[in-house]
Amino acid sequence: MKRAEELGERKIIEIVQSHLDLMPKMPIPFGDDVSACAIGSGELAILKTDMLVAKTDVPLGMSLWQAARKAVVMNISDFAAKGVKPSAMLVSLGLPKGIVERDVEELARGLNAGAREYGAYIIGGDTGEASDLVVSLSLFGTAAQGEVMLRSGAKPGDFLAVTGFFGKTSAGLKILLNDLDVIEKVRKVLVESVLLPRARLKEGLALSRTDAVTATIDSSDGLAWSLHELARASNVGFLVDKLPIAREAERFAEDNNIDPPKLALYGGEEYEIVLTVKPRLWSAAEEAVTRVGGRLLRIGIVTAKKRVLFEMKGNKHVIKPRGYEHFKT
Amino acid sequence: MKRAEELGERKIIEIVQSHLDLMPKMPIPFGDDVSACAIGSGELAILKTDMLVAKTDVPLGMSLWQAARKAVVMNISDFAAKGVKPSAMLVSLGLPKGIVERDVEELARGLNAGAREYGAYIIGGDTGEASDLVVSLSLFGTAAQGEVMLRSGAKPGDFLAVTGFFGKTSAGLKILLNDLDVIEKVRKVLVESVLLPRARLKEGLALSRTDAVTATIDSSDGLAWSLHELARASNVGFLVDKLPIAREAERFAEDNNIDPPKLALYGGEEYEIVLTVKPRLWSAAEEAVTRVGGRLLRIGIVTAKKRVLFEMKGNKHVIKPRGYEHFKT
Repeated sequence: MKRAEELGERKIIEIVQSHLDLMPKMPIPFGDDVSACAIGSGELAILKTDMLVAKTDVPLGMSLWQAARKAVVMNISDFAAKGVKPSAMLVSLGLPKGIVERDVEELARGLNAGAREYGAYIIGGDTGEASDLVVSLSLFGTAAQGEVMLRSGAKPGDFLAVTGFFGKTSAGLKILLNDLDVIEKVRKVLVESVLLPRARLKEGLALSRTDAVTATIDSSDGLAWSLHELARASNVGFLVDKLPIAREAERFAEDNNIDPPKLALYGGEEYEIVLTVKPRLWSAAEEAVTRVGGRLLRIGIVTAKKRVLFEMKGNKHVIKPRGYEHFKT
Repeated sequence: MKRAEELGERKIIEIVQSHLDLMPKMPIPFGDDVSACAIGSGELAILKTDMLVAKTDVPLGMSLWQAARKAVVMNISDFAAKGVKPSAMLVSLGLPKGIVERDVEELARGLNAGAREYGAYIIGGDTGEASDLVVSLSLFGTAAQGEVMLRSGAKPGDFLAVTGFFGKTSAGLKILLNDLDVIEKVRKVLVESVLLPRARLKEGLALSRTDAVTATIDSSDGLAWSLHELARASNVGFLVDKLPIAREAERFAEDNNIDPPKLALYGGEEYEIVLTVKPRLWSAAEEAVTRVGGRLLRIGIVTAKKRVLFEMKGNKHVIKPRGYEHFKT
């Protein structure tokens, strides 16, 4: 009989799903970044829940305010990737016994700050005792059916793109956990990417208003894993010809003898949108994102061949289906 | 600086709320059994989240299937009390490391059974590692604005009613925790009320279709506490002249030298609806509930004087604002 740490998060989710009766005519299939329920007149209720557990999701050096805000960002990022505006949020707080009044205040302020940063409100919740700090959030919004960007529409020939550079969070985590060496200016950027992550909501909303996007996923389990999931859902492959490595991550990698592509590919807790775009509408997509202050980086192309590869200095390498996974990592 | 166990669940919720920006025009105020968000055309999205933590909410003798199903019932009960049909549910599972594949299956089957029992579907979720088993559910449904039964409408002279008898769960819990003595037939009923609780969804939906109900609350924190909360939200008092003590609870109380009213008043984890009804529409309310196979018990009256009392053998006693409270109990 396999235990949780042998099964891993994804297999556990698979087991749970296999025992659930399917809602007839589910507007968004199981396994996409958000769930949905039809509410009439072609409108969908969009729902998402994600749980932050201090033991695994809150690194040393992160304050309770930052942890609470991060719990919000984790959930908002999935709405961002689907191009859905979050309206309201409920919070379930599991608190360990020793926690004091000031801690509760700090958590509340962090939750509120996160929600307001993205235009949402916390409208209810619940609290109880737990062995570990647990912040379980559920997010609600509405969207027109057919306007939600899914994981499943990428076509061979589409451009592969991301909304930002990768590698900063894994570098920042390594710094926080192992106290690794790096010059102060770079350290600050890398650590901040861990403590104050940002979701690409403006970018996601802008992209969803164009007709350019064929598939999207949020990158919270790392770039490599997100590419594999997107490939699987769309039944395609990818060739990455320009790895989006953050300058600061590259610098950190060089200073610490780490392979920069690995830092960018196999991280996690990075809240970019990974997407595919119709080539003839590329400039429309790019312009939409630029107009809201973001950027769209073309990093490769969708292939009919179902492999996920990256090309560097003329050589092709396999991108492994590896990323952050609860229980296993 | 006060710690969680001195603050108690309710004070913690108050602290959190005081740090949140209020959503403008909240259709249902903070502190009612469910939360809501306007979605246009006079419709509301109804949302609820409640977290089951094994350490405090799963008594010895309860299987994982039962624990998962109970987590669903806890949430459904709040929808029931508001007269809202649940459509969909998301689940966040926090799993301790030692858990095995069969446990995950049992949890999934319990969740699905609970959802389907009340006509809802689980449409998504998330899992991660936690120190303790945590089942955080969020429930979604829609309702017409103005049709949701609130805590705040009771008027002096209204009848006070409940959808079932009280005391079985606290008796059952005492049996499970202390192995107390009671004849097998009674034991079975009492223990089952703990292991297989039921939410009064049919009753709540039937009541909401009448024009008879002025205020409602679910009784999961115990009858006494629910009465005090209902009184506070409606700015009234109650005189209970007929305590709804379950026969089996009475028998158990007598056998174990416990005061029966205490068993009925100060329990918890009982999922009845406590409500107030316009006297001239009492029979309409009663009929609506009977038609769906339930029962409506008139237990007292709403008073202008803001005290919560019960009358027994000609004497009036104060019902204390006491009930189940996380961190404190």
